[in-house]
Amino acid sequence: MNGGTQSMEQVQNIRWDQAEDGLVILDQTLLPGEEREIRLQTAEEMYEAIRSLRVRGAPAIGIFAAYCMYALARKLPAADKEAFLTALAAQGAYLDSARPTAVNLHWAIEEMMKTARANADSGREVLEQVLLRKAQAIQADDIQKCFQISQYGLELVKDGDGILTHCNAGPLATSRYGTALGPILLGTERGMKFRVFADETRPLLQGARLTSYELQRAGVDVTLICDNMASIVMKNGWVQACFVGCDRVAANGDTANKIGTSGVAILARHYGIPFYVLGPTSTIDMACPDGDHIPIEERDGEEIKSLWYEKPMAPAGVRCYDPAFDVTDHGLIDAIVTEKGICRPPYTESLAALFREEA
Amino acid sequence: MNGGTQSMEQVQNIRWDQAEDGLVILDQTLLPGEEREIRLQTAEEMYEAIRSLRVRGAPAIGIFAAYCMYALARKLPAADKEAFLTALAAQGAYLDSARPTAVNLHWAIEEMMKTARANADSGREVLEQVLLRKAQAIQADDIQKCFQISQYGLELVKDGDGILTHCNAGPLATSRYGTALGPILLGTERGMKFRVFADETRPLLQGARLTSYELQRAGVDVTLICDNMASIVMKNGWVQACFVGCDRVAANGDTANKIGTSGVAILARHYGIPFYVLGPTSTIDMACPDGDHIPIEERDGEEIKSLWYEKPMAPAGVRCYDPAFDVTDHGLIDAIVTEKGICRPPYTESLAALFREEA
Repeated sequence: MNGGTQSMEQVQNIRWDQAEDGLVILDQTLLPGEEREIRLQTAEEMYEAIRSLRVRGAPAIGIFAAYCMYALARKLPAADKEAFLTALAAQGAYLDSARPTAVNLHWAIEEMMKTARANADSGREVLEQVLLRKAQAIQADDIQKCFQISQYGLELVKDGDGILTHCNAGPLATSRYGTALGPILLGTERGMKFRVFADETRPLLQGARLTSYELQRAGVDVTLICDNMASIVMKNGWVQACFVGCDRVAANGDTANKIGTSGVAILARHYGIPFYVLGPTSTIDMACPDGDHIPIEERDGEEIKSLWYEKPMAPAGVRCYDPAFDVTDHGLIDAIVTEKGICRPPYTESLAALFREEA
Repeated sequence: MNGGTQSMEQVQNIRWDQAEDGLVILDQTLLPGEEREIRLQTAEEMYEAIRSLRVRGAPAIGIFAAYCMYALARKLPAADKEAFLTALAAQGAYLDSARPTAVNLHWAIEEMMKTARANADSGREVLEQVLLRKAQAIQADDIQKCFQISQYGLELVKDGDGILTHCNAGPLATSRYGTALGPILLGTERGMKFRVFADETRPLLQGARLTSYELQRAGVDVTLICDNMASIVMKNGWVQACFVGCDRVAANGDTANKIGTSGVAILARHYGIPFYVLGPTSTIDMACPDGDHIPIEERDGEEIKSLWYEKPMAPAGVRCYDPAFDVTDHGLIDAIVTEKGICRPPYTESLAALFREEA
C-alpha cells in the first residue's frame, strides 16, 4: 500500500517552473485549508516568504534560497564580473538576514556564491545554467539525503511503535520524505504501522497544520495533541521514541530546533523514552562550539495573541515573549541521525568524524 | 499602590442577585474581550455553564454549585421531606456529572445536601434561608482560605522573584486573590514586585485570556508565553518558583490540575526550580489514595482544531486526544500550600495531619 506516498509526491513545496520561467512555492501558511502556489519575483518577495514562513523548514529554506540566488542572478544587469558578484552577494546577504537560526539558509547561499565565483568567467548564459543546475543539485541532493536519513532512522524504531514529533520536519520542510517524518513515511511505504503523536506546535501550529496533514495524506495513524499534552501521552506509555528535526546543530551536539523541542527532550528523559534528532549534515555547524553560540530568532508576540484567531485572545498590550527556537542540550539527545549514519554521544567526536570522512 | 486590587474587586465571578432573585455569573468564555454577566435559571443552564467553562476553577465551581443547589431547591415543588431531598439530590448528581476531575464540585454539592437534610424539618422558607446562608458561607470561607493560602505562599518567594504559572488559579477561579495567583496579588498589594510568566494554556487559553487579564489589571509585571516556551524561560534563569492550582489532590500528594501541569513540574525539576501546588483543603481527597484513582476528563478534540479560530487549523477528520487534566506525581512537588499551612513531603503524613487537626 503506497497510495499515501504517491499523493505526497503531488505536493511539491518548491519548484523552478521552466515553462513560466519563475520560482514557485506552495504557500505553507494557507495549509491545510488551501493548497495555493505563489510565484516569487523580487528579492523582497523572497525575503518575505522566508520571514513569514510561507516556505519553512531548515532544508527547504536552503533549497529555496538556492533557487532564489539563481533567479536573482538572472535579473542582475550585465556588468563586469566583480560588480556582478558583489551585487549577487548583497542579495544573498539580504536573504540570509530573513531568519537567523537555521544554518541551511546561510549554507545554501554560500554554496551558490561559490558556484558563481567559480564560473564567473564563463559568460552570462553559461553561468546562469550552472547556477540553475547547482540549485537543482541541492534539491536532488536533499531528496537523497532525506532518504538515507529515513533509512537510518528506521533502524531506531520497530513496527507498531508510538512516535512523538514536534513541529514539522516532513516533505514540506525538506524535499521528500523529510527528516523527522522520514522514517515514518518510509516505514509506512514498507508496510509498517506507527502510531504518531503530533504536537500542534504553537504559535504557528506547524504540527496541526502541516505534520498531521502530511501524515494523514500518507495514511499514517496520527493523533494531534496540544504541546502541553506530551507529558500525559508519554506517561500513558504510548510513546516509544521522539523524532524531531533541527535548524542548527553545534559541534558539541547542542541542537536548535522549533521552540518547545527542549521541553519534549526533558520529558522524554524523565519518562525514559529515547529522543532522536534527524537532519542532514548541512545542518551541523562545526564552527559553532555549543548552543550558547546559536542565535535564537525572537519574533513579534502578536502571533501568540491574535494570529489565526477571530478576535485577540489576550488583553490588549500584554507583553509576550516569543522565541522561535530553543536549544536542546546534547546530554538529552540519544542520537543524531544524518545521511551519513547515526551519531551517538560524545558528539564532539562523532560529529567531527562525519566531516573528517568527508575531507 | 493598591489600585489594581481595587479594580479586581469589581470583577465578581459568581453572585446571588437578591434584587433580581437570580444566580449571576461572569461568562469567562468571553474574557478578555467582553465582561458579560449571564443569569442561570435551569439545571440544564447550570450544567452547561460548568461544562463549557463559563464558570471554571475548582474552588469557583464549588461555590457556583452551592448557589445552584439553593436556586434549584427554591424551584422544587412543595412536597414531603423525602421527596424534596430525593429530588434535590438528583439535581445535585446531575450537576456533579458536568466535570469529573475537580473534587470541589462534588464536595460543595455534598455540603449543601448535608445542610438540606439537617434542616429538612424546619419548613420550606427557613430551609431556603439556611441553604442561601450555607452557599454564602462557602463563598466567604473561600475568600478567607484564599487569603490564608496567599499568606503562606508568600513565604515561599521573595521580592523580585520570577514566577511561572500554568492555567488560571486567580480570583476568577476562586473567590478573591485566588490560590496560585494569591501570593502574587497579595504581595503586589504589599508593594512587592514579581515578574510573572503565564503559560497560555491550550486549548482553552485560560492563561492568555484570564491569568494575564487578572495580573495586568492588578498592575503585575506579566509576560504571556506559549506552553512550549516554559523550558526556555526556565533555562534563561527567569523563574525562581512555579505556582499552580489544583483540581484534586490525592492522599499521597499526587495532584490533578489543568493539562500540562505535570510537564511544567518535570521541567522545573530538571532546572532545579521549586514547584508549588496551592489550594484549599477542600481540594484534597483523602478517599483517593493516589493519582491513578483520579478520573481524568477527556474532552472533544474539536476545541483543539477549531475553537477560537477563523477557520479549522488542522485537516478535517484528523484524530485528537484532548485530556482536560493531568496528574503531577507527588515526587515532583516541593510543597502543597493550603489554608492551614505548608505541607512538605512525605505527603501521606503531612496531608493526613491536616485532617487529624480538623477532627
